[in-house]
Amino acid sequence: MKAKVLVRLKREVLDPQGDAVRRALGTLGFDGVRDVRVGKLIEIDLGASARSSVEVTERLKKMSDELLANPVIEDYEVSVSD
Amino acid sequence: MKAKVLVRLKREVLDPQGDAVRRALGTLGFDGVRDVRVGKLIEIDLGASARSSVEVTERLKKMSDELLANPVIEDYEVSVSD
Repeated sequence: MKAKVLVRLKREVLDPQGDAVRRALGTLGFDGVRDVRVGKLIEIDLGASARSSVEVTERLKKMSDELLANPVIEDYEVSVSD
Repeated sequence: MKAKVLVRLKREVLDPQGDAVRRALGTLGFDGVRDVRVGKLIEIDLGASARSSVEVTERLKKMSDELLANPVIEDYEVSVSD
């Protein structure tokens, strides 16, 4: 079972890295870029498991709350595939 | 138009950050985690554009090759939505 966790800064949190990328894209000639946000992609290989995908999703949410994301400034999105 | 670029380290490239996360998950009691890879999620707001989604995708690939990813050690995946 494989899981993907996308971690994004909350909308109201400034993203200096994203701003730097936006400016750099402009400098390279890519016009019309309005906003860039940089987050994390975390891919987890859970091996074979007897757990249902609902249980696995719950477990991933716990992992995200405890380690993968900082719930104060970040949101996360979890998806599971076989 | 919004775009999402997922940047991953190539399979053959070591990922010390992913290994650290894997070990930390084990320490926190999440057993059975076989592998963790950490990549980047880059979300780009391109505003309103007369370009077709094929053209936009081509442009995003150029952005990725030139700035968003390091093609020597990273792969990327581009997706576009309205």
